[in-house]
Parts: sequence; structure tokens; C-alpha cells
Amino acid sequence: MEDKDNLAINTIRFLAVDMVEKAGSGHPGLPLGAAAPAYVLWRRIMKFNPADPGWSNRDRFILSPGHGSALLYALLYTHGYGLTLDDLKAFRQLDSLTPGHPETEITPGVDASTGPLGHGLAMGVGMALAQRFQASRFNRPGFPVVDHYIYALVSDGDLMEGVAAEAVSLAGTLKLGRIVYLYDSNDISIEGSTDLSFDEDVAGHFIACGWQVLKVEDSEDLAALEAALRQARANLGQPSLVIVKTHIGRGSPKQDSPAAHGEPLGSQAWAATRVYYNWPGQPFYLPPEITQWISSSRDQGQAAQKAWQDMFGRYADSYPELARQYKDELKGALPGDAFANMPEFSQPVATRSASGRIINALAANLPNLVGGSADLAPSNKTVIENGGDMNQEGPGCGRNIHFGVREHAMGAIINGMALYGGLLPYAATFFSFSDFLRPALRMAALMKTKSIFVFTHDSLAVGEDGPTHQPVEQLMSLRLIPGLTVLRPADAWETLAAWQLILRRPGPCVLVLSRQDLPLLPEKHPALEYGGYVLSPEEAPLTGIIAASGSEAHLALAVKEKMGDKGRGFRVASMPCWELFAAQTEEYRNLTIPPWRAGDGLWRVSIEAGVSLGWERWLGPAGERTLLLGTDRFGLSGPGGQVMYRFGFNAEKIARRILADM
Amino acid sequence: MEDKDNLAINTIRFLAVDMVEKAGSGHPGLPLGAAAPAYVLWRRIMKFNPADPGWSNRDRFILSPGHGSALLYALLYTHGYGLTLDDLKAFRQLDSLTPGHPETEITPGVDASTGPLGHGLAMGVGMALAQRFQASRFNRPGFPVVDHYIYALVSDGDLMEGVAAEAVSLAGTLKLGRIVYLYDSNDISIEGSTDLSFDEDVAGHFIACGWQVLKVEDSEDLAALEAALRQARANLGQPSLVIVKTHIGRGSPKQDSPAAHGEPLGSQAWAATRVYYNWPGQPFYLPPEITQWISSSRDQGQAAQKAWQDMFGRYADSYPELARQYKDELKGALPGDAFANMPEFSQPVATRSASGRIINALAANLPNLVGGSADLAPSNKTVIENGGDMNQEGPGCGRNIHFGVREHAMGAIINGMALYGGLLPYAATFFSFSDFLRPALRMAALMKTKSIFVFTHDSLAVGEDGPTHQPVEQLMSLRLIPGLTVLRPADAWETLAAWQLILRRPGPCVLVLSRQDLPLLPEKHPALEYGGYVLSPEEAPLTGIIAASGSEAHLALAVKEKMGDKGRGFRVASMPCWELFAAQTEEYRNLTIPPWRAGDGLWRVSIEAGVSLGWERWLGPAGERTLLLGTDRFGLSGPGGQVMYRFGFNAEKIARRILADM
Repeated sequence: MEDKDNLAINTIRFLAVDMVEKAGSGHPGLPLGAAAPAYVLWRRIMKFNPADPGWSNRDRFILSPGHGSALLYALLYTHGYGLTLDDLKAFRQLDSLTPGHPETEITPGVDASTGPLGHGLAMGVGMALAQRFQASRFNRPGFPVVDHYIYALVSDGDLMEGVAAEAVSLAGTLKLGRIVYLYDSNDISIEGSTDLSFDEDVAGHFIACGWQVLKVEDSEDLAALEAALRQARANLGQPSLVIVKTHIGRGSPKQDSPAAHGEPLGSQAWAATRVYYNWPGQPFYLPPEITQWISSSRDQGQAAQKAWQDMFGRYADSYPELARQYKDELKGALPGDAFANMPEFSQPVATRSASGRIINALAANLPNLVGGSADLAPSNKTVIENGGDMNQEGPGCGRNIHFGVREHAMGAIINGMALYGGLLPYAATFFSFSDFLRPALRMAALMKTKSIFVFTHDSLAVGEDGPTHQPVEQLMSLRLIPGLTVLRPADAWETLAAWQLILRRPGPCVLVLSRQDLPLLPEKHPALEYGGYVLSPEEAPLTGIIAASGSEAHLALAVKEKMGDKGRGFRVASMPCWELFAAQTEEYRNLTIPPWRAGDGLWRVSIEAGVSLGWERWLGPAGERTLLLGTDRFGLSGPGGQVMYRFGFNAEKIARRILADM
Repeated sequence: MEDKDNLAINTIRFLAVDMVEKAGSGHPGLPLGAAAPAYVLWRRIMKFNPADPGWSNRDRFILSPGHGSALLYALLYTHGYGLTLDDLKAFRQLDSLTPGHPETEITPGVDASTGPLGHGLAMGVGMALAQRFQASRFNRPGFPVVDHYIYALVSDGDLMEGVAAEAVSLAGTLKLGRIVYLYDSNDISIEGSTDLSFDEDVAGHFIACGWQVLKVEDSEDLAALEAALRQARANLGQPSLVIVKTHIGRGSPKQDSPAAHGEPLGSQAWAATRVYYNWPGQPFYLPPEITQWISSSRDQGQAAQKAWQDMFGRYADSYPELARQYKDELKGALPGDAFANMPEFSQPVATRSASGRIINALAANLPNLVGGSADLAPSNKTVIENGGDMNQEGPGCGRNIHFGVREHAMGAIINGMALYGGLLPYAATFFSFSDFLRPALRMAALMKTKSIFVFTHDSLAVGEDGPTHQPVEQLMSLRLIPGLTVLRPADAWETLAAWQLILRRPGPCVLVLSRQDLPLLPEKHPALEYGGYVLSPEEAPLTGIIAASGSEAHLALAVKEKMGDKGRGFRVASMPCWELFAAQTEEYRNLTIPPWRAGDGLWRVSIEAGVSLGWERWLGPAGERTLLLGTDRFGLSGPGGQVMYRFGFNAEKIARRILADM
């Protein structure tokens, strides 16, 4: 190893070690072990411009084991991304640019938030899919507008996660050759040697999944690392895994031990490690060369982006429409005709089917709307007809993604696609299985990605498939995730309004759709953007309010009708989206659902085929005249209508119950 | 194939097909394709007694693709488990013994509920671990008390799921040789050929994970199937996968097409399939031989169990104490001294640490308490000291399980261990990552298994690791799962009471524990079994109530104290378990937390470091004097105390806010 490389690598090592030591918490083991491979990747392989971390044609880099964040911050610092030494010193402190795990919203140059293991690896697969799709759309002979790679560092912990296994299998099937992952193989996990729980032949596993696998036995052999990375990059027909044998906590007294993983070295080991590497004792020591490293990285990045921009300028001359579209989509702007030629509805239709027609109408206007299902597309109604499949490179690359039965990776993958920029990706499965990708929903909300989730078969009305397939707690549980917008439309028109809102709204959205046909509500342009609105006003002095979402909105209307004259004082509210309703003024909310007042004698009834906990927010606690109708047990296998009846979701039953006490 | 085998296999095929046809929904494709392998397994390989489906030494069988339930019911019927033809005709109807997906609680002979793909495969790994552990404890020379296999049918869909990949990797690492899985490899999934999304070399993948892989090219070659299954069974050093090339919808006009998967054949294809197999046109036709099949299966089963019982009788003579223990544990009875020598606490301690001491004290009394963590045992404090590892066969087999970073499979695995009977299994990870195993929590609740989940690092107070590691919505979201008991104790004593309750209570429980030290509450025997109780009564006429769980109970006490004289009218309630509190009488609940009455002037304050939605159930909607203090956004990276302060979890701040309006 040349001295200057050695110096740079050790600078990275000790910046990371010192950050952890100063913070009094963090993970020094990974940076010590993986600094050299990361250095080679960043210094000799990757294309990026520190002055413009958002450059669309940059290589992406994901630190999948996010706990090694100190390594990433040291890389960003030494490559001129603008982090200051003070930022590094504020590692893991409130409001710093250097939080405990990388957060893409916070730190320029961080391409994905990581921490939950496996997700980074899977998000990279989404980025590679996005790269493939965008290249197929925008590249023209002589104009490689979209021409870059997806790099990641992945760890033993990542590879044990099922979400990673799913993503690895899909990436191999789809031959995503732009993927080049470095595997930091150190044989140590928190509980001890990986032999205890993970002795699989990782190379064999990846090869079985269609990957190219390369090995570097010595993590400090820069030439071998560089050669392997170049070989990986040269294979565009397969994703590549470069297995690097590393030593956790390398050079410290805790090397090759779990003790190196997740806590500061402590002053003794800290000092001993400095001795090992012959490194100055001063914390946050920087060699004089640092200035040159930073400026060379910035110069190189500027030059790279400049060359691309020059090329893009010529591209814009030759293909002005494409160039405009490329830029507009990256901005996230919807075209003016985004909602032209939306479908009309004239008879009862399942909201999943309405959604299917809407997706296809939108797809005609939005060439960047892409997505698919976890092997349930025919049921979820998410196929873009004649949209082709995203299973190949080049002009034949289409828009439908066959995720396979891999809900979790699907979620992480569309998050990666959304992070990539320029795309509007959606993912679909049965609502009951939204649990399988809940960690991805959370990451979408945390990163504020424009990920769209379509969940169909939304209640007990699913029927015969029984309780494993009947969501009960899912709806309320998604409402709990901060920043996630959950929409459960009551008919085709609300479904249309929901799709329009989803596309306009920043951040992730969930669309919850019925399996069964639902009648059309009278209003073609429902006030869905308010989250809750009066569907049927009282026709006499107000005596009660019934609030419901989705299919139960119709039940609410039917209850009012069944009550005959006594129903005239009842108001029915449709509540398709709690997050939006909560964001309205108190005045609006009170005009929709009157606030509880002692002795006002009003009936307050919610109807929703799921757990009732939470409805108290709008209607107050259940009591004499407050009925929170839901189910607090799991469903049953039987015809959907019968199941709904058994659980009390029947207009006659509910009307009788109210009338009996009126 | 001999005629009588052919006849029996076709009987199974057509019973399944007719069940689906009569129900008007269901999945005929799998039974048509996999009937022969399933028949060979059940008729020639498996050991079971239809008259006693709970016989502890039976082979287990899991239909991992639960949508093929008609196959399983046809197997149960033809093997004499007691299902009647009327039961089969009531397939997928309300209250039938033959629900859409297999439910272990409903149908005798169903060893695990399945439907969510991948879970069956993973639960089988749990059963194999249980088998290993019980064999190591109870078998003695000449007395193979625990001596059986875990069989499953697994599908393409199962193998795409991450939870399955995790379980496969762990089973290989742990060399679980009692596992023999038949892989129904039909190359078709719902969206089309598996080439679209799943072209991995499954054999290569499993071999890389340490499995023995055998192949049978023709699903109708009974001799080859039997030979492969016997070879699989003979290898006790590795789990085995027998790959059987099958044809979905075999013999129907829809063979090898996704159309065969998930809907009735329809009358034309139904008739054509009968012609193909030369099968009578009468629905639910039974050949005369059926009586003999059933009785031979029952005779064989009775003989097998009788032989075992005779052996067990001699075992009981030689090892009376072991025999007693074996039987008692299977009954689920706790020994009288289960809670002897529990730890004492005298100073502040994190509830995770208290739990660690309790686990070790319990483990001394309960030799069937076993478990582990998803590679976080040192942090979760779940190691049974000197308990050994469950990584080997025989007398050296210990009690700690190293699940690796595989939360999802971990959950399914302990569900399988709980289903197995006789064990008290627990699983642990960070609370934030409970999302990763949420589908397993749901299955535990649905199956009512005695699975114990230990989730530590339970709030924003986690601190530096930041929002990915700080649970916010998890606590409320678990309270939504029907039948799941969620306990968040406020100190070491509540933690002790929680463990005692968990062990006594049927069904799955979740224990939510702090990372940080918490002071001891005054009461060594808190009224935790009520779910909520008065921690500090008012010392003056009641002016307010503060309710909190976990670490926030101390905050509630501190708020009262900070309020000085004005705090004397405040009552503080600890709310460690909502499910238990909800189960109390209304009178008790009202005595603990006065029911919400607008205008009664009482302060109602909840404090919980998570989303507030749901607290309205106990305190009413937020309003002038009702404060639901929580966080409806994600956390931040920084020292735990500072993060808590930033989010308003500070006694001074809260007290001032109340006092300002009093």
C-alpha cells in the first residue's frame, strides 16, 4: 500500500474512531475494518460531485449497516461534501448533521437512510431498477444520460435479514448489472462468531441467485479491491458481490471480537489502536494532505458533472422534449395533463378495480408511474396494460414490476426507486400482508419518500380466505405511523380523488381498497382532500352522526335510511383519511363531527370493519349513545357477506340497536 | 403406479377439487399437482395417530402454502382424522371445520395455521428445534421418548418470502436433521411463470445453506418419492429438501397455468379433469375402498402410539421423575416452585436488566423456558447464563437460541416451538424492530400460542441511535392486535409481576422494556394483573389524573410532585397493560380513572413516549384540560435525556403547563 493511501485510510479510520469516542457511543468496529475497501470505492471507482450531492447521474452509495455511520461521515468529510470537523465532533448529538444512523433528509451526500438491517441492500435494488428504467427511456445513441452504478457496503447482519434475501433473489432474476456491492465479511456479529447463527456459504447463495461473486482475501490489498470492483462493474449482465474478508475493529485490541462492534473503544484501547497504526494521539488529527484530498475530490467531481452537463446540453439540442421531460420529472412536477382522461364510473365497482382503471389512465399521462405487486397483480388490479415488464435492459424495458412473493423487499425497493428521483413508484399486496412490509412503510415515512402503497382486500368482507387474509388491525395501525397518509376511499370517485391527492402530496401514501363491489356515492368530486366530510347531511335538527370509512360508508348511509323518519336527524360523514382530517381547522372538524358536549344527547356512531381503538379521537369514548362499531377479534372463514353480518356490520342490526334506545 | 395408490391419490385430488367447486372459491391447482407426494408422505412415511392428533411423539406436518387447504382436509379425511364428508362439503363456510386456510385451533390434525407464505416453513424450524431440545432432555438409552420428524410441504411462494430464507439459513446452520420438506416445484406463481420473478437455483441456495437436497423429477413416481423421503429422513445431520417437479392443476385443462391456482375449475374444466383421470362424475365420489383406507390408517396410528405408550410406561418405571416432568410440561402446568427465589431489587435498574435477572431466576425453576434474540442478546438481556446453546443434538443441547439478525423467522420459529407443546419459548429484539416480526405476532395471536416476546429499548430515550431505533408507534400498534397481551412495566417490580403473569396467562404476550435505568416504585407487589392501577392516590379532593406506562410512570409521579400543593389533588395511575385493564369491571376502571365527563373540571393527562392516538379510550379526546402527551412524529438522534426533553417529556415542563391553566 502506498503511504498516501495508507494515510488517507487511517485518517478515515481515526476520524470515525474519534467521533465515536467523543460521542461516548457508536460503532468503531466497522469503520476500522472496512475503511480500506470504502476508500478504494470512493477514491478510485465512484463518480460523484460533492458540490452537488443531488446530481442525477452520480453513482449511488448506500451504507447498509447504518450503524457504521461514522465511516460514512468520515468519507463525506474527506471527499469534500461540506461536513465540517465541528459536524464530526457533534456526532450523535441533537440537531447535528451527523446523527447516529445515516439520514438522507439530514446529511447531504447520504443517498438513503439506513439502520434497520437489510433495507439498504434492498433499496439499492430499487435504485438499480430505477436506473434501468430511466436509461431505457432517456438514453440515446451517443447520449448516455443515465449511466451510473449502485454501490453499497453490506454486512453479515444485512445478509441474515429476509428482506435482503428477497432483494438478492429478485436482483439476480432481473439481472441488475448496475449493482456492485461490497460485502464487509468479518465473521462477527453481536452475539459472537457468525458460526453460531450464520454459517451459510454466502458466495454459493448469491451464485445460486444469479449474481457474480468476487473475493478479496485481504481488506488492505487496495489493488485487489480496485481490480475486483472494476471487474464487478464490467459485468453488466449480473449484479455483483465483492466479498472482502475484513476484521472488525482492525488494529484495535478488540479486533475480531464483538466488543469492537457497538461501543467506544475506551481510552486504553483508543490509545493502543493509535500505537498500532502509528497515528498521532491528538483526537481528530488531520494530516496536512487533507486539504489536497478534499480539493482533488471536488475538482474531480466538478469535472465529471461538467462533462455530463456538456453532454446533456448537446442531448437537449438533439432531443429537446426528452431533455425537458427528464428535468421536469426530476423536479417532481406533474405535467399539466396528469389527470386528463380519467375514467368515468356509472355502476358499482370494487375500489380495487376502480383503482386499476385509474392507474391505467394515469399511466397514459405519467410515463414515470411504475410499479407492481408481490405476485398478486391480477387481484390488486395494478397491472399497467401494455406497459411491458421491467425485466430487461434497453428499449424493451417496461413499467410493470413482478416483485414475486416478497412484500418486504418490495416495500424497500420502491423506497429506493423513490429516493432515486424522477419516478412515481407503487407497490401492492393484500392489506393483511401490509404487516410484512411495515418496516418499509416506516422507512418511507421517515425518509419522506414519495412511495405509493396499494393494499386491496381491505376487511372481513374478504370472506372465505379467513382470518389470515382478513385485515382487522392493519388500518388503525397504519394511521399510527407518523407522516404516512392512509386513504380508504368509499367508492370509485373517492378512489379517483385519492389517486389525484396521492400524486400531488409529498411523502408516502397508502391506498386501502375493497375486494368487493361498492355502490357509487352521489358526488363525483368528493371532498376527500379534507380527509372527512359530510356525505349525507341531517334533514332535521341534528340527533346523531355516523362516521365511517371505505365500504362502511355505504353501511352508514343504509343505517340512516333503515331508521326511517328517525334517521332524518342523522348526519353521515365519510372519513377516508384521518391524517388529512386532523390537519383541518378545528372549526371545520367540528362542523363535520360535532365535538362531544355533556348532555347534548347526540348519537355518535362509528362503523369500520376493523379494531375500534382510536375512533374515540373523533367520537369520544364509547358510552350510552356513543357506539364504536368495529371488531376487536380476528375474522372468520365464510362468505364475505355472512362474515360481515356475523360481526354486526349490517344496517338492519345497527339501525335496530339505535332505535331501541332512542 | 399401482391401481390402489392411484385410486387413493385421485380420491384426494377430487375431494379437494370438489370442495373448491362446491364452495365456489378456493385453490384446486395445488391439490391436483401435489396429491401424489402428499399421499406418499402420509401413507408410507409419516407416523401419526388420527385418534389422538395431539400425541406428543407424532410426526408434525405443515402445509406451508395454506391456500392448498383442500388437500390437507382431503388427507385428514382419508386418513381417518374424523372429518366427515359433510365437513368437506362445508369447506370455507362459517363455523365449519374446514376454513379457507388451515387453522390449528379449529381442525384436529392441523399442526399449524398457515396462509401467510413462508411462515409454515419457519414454524417447522421451530418445531425441529423443540424436538431437538426435548429429545436432549428426555431421551435415555433404549427410550427414544422424543423421536419423530417435522415434515412440510412448501411452495414457490414460500421460498420467495424472506422469512423462509431466514429460517432456511438458520436451520442449515443448526443442522436440524429432523426436518424433511417436500418442495412442490411447479414453476408457476399467480402473475405467471416463476421465471418472471424467481429464477434462482433453489437447490444451490439450499445447499449453500447446509441442506441436503434431493430431487424427484416425476411427481407421480411414488417409488422415487418414497425413496427420496427415506433418504431425507436418514440424514440426521442436515435438514433435507426434496424437490418434486409438479404440475399445478395437473390433469385439468388449466394445468401449468396460473388460472389453476386460485379459483374453482368451473364446470367445463371440472368435467374435463374427471375425464382425464377417468373419475366418476358424481361430486364427492368415494370409492368403496375408502372404508378400508380409513381403518388401516387408524389401526396403524393406534399401533404406533400404543407401542410408544408401552415404551413410555417402561420409561416411567426407570425414570419416574423425567416421565412426570415430561407429562406435566406438556399439560402446560407450571411447577409449584415456578416463582421461587425471584430476584430482589433495591436500586434503580433498567427494566431490561431486571428482566434479565428474572429470566435467569425463572430458568432455574423452569427447565422448559428457552429462547434467544435476533443477535441482540447482550442488549436485550435474554441470555440464560450457563444455559448452553441449542446448537447441537444430544446431551450438549442447551437453552439459548442464537437466531441471528432474523427477527421475522425468530417470531415464526418460537410460534412453532410453542405449537410443539411443552415449552415456554421467548424471542427478543429491539422494540423498534418488532415491526420486522409483526406478521409472527399476529399469527401467535391468531393461533393463541404461548409465545413470549421481549422487546427492549422501548422509547425515544434510546437516544443516540436515532429515529430508526426509537420506537414511536410500536406500542400502540401492538395493542391493536386482538388477543395479544402487551405489557410495559414501569420498574423492576412491575417487570417481575409481568413475567409471572405472562407465564400464567394463555396466549402470546409482549414485554416492552426500557434501555435506561428506572427508579423502583414503592410497591414490591404491584397490582399489575389489573392492567392499570392507582400508583399514587390523590391527597386532597380529586382535581386530576395522570396516567402513564413504563418509564413515563415516574415522569407522572414527578409532575405531581413538581406541582407542589396543587398536585395534592392529582392521582397517578400506572397503566402497564391495556388488555388487562379493559378486561376489568367498569366499576374498577372508573375507580382507577374517572370516566370522561365533559365539564367535570378534572384534569386528565396521559404521558407516554409514543403516539397518543388511542389514549382517548381512557381519558377522552384531547381538550382544554385533557392532555394526551406523546409524540406524533419520529424521534431524533441525541442523548436520550435530551431527546426526551426536546419532545416535552419533562416533569418541570408538564407541571408548568398544567399549573399555568389551573
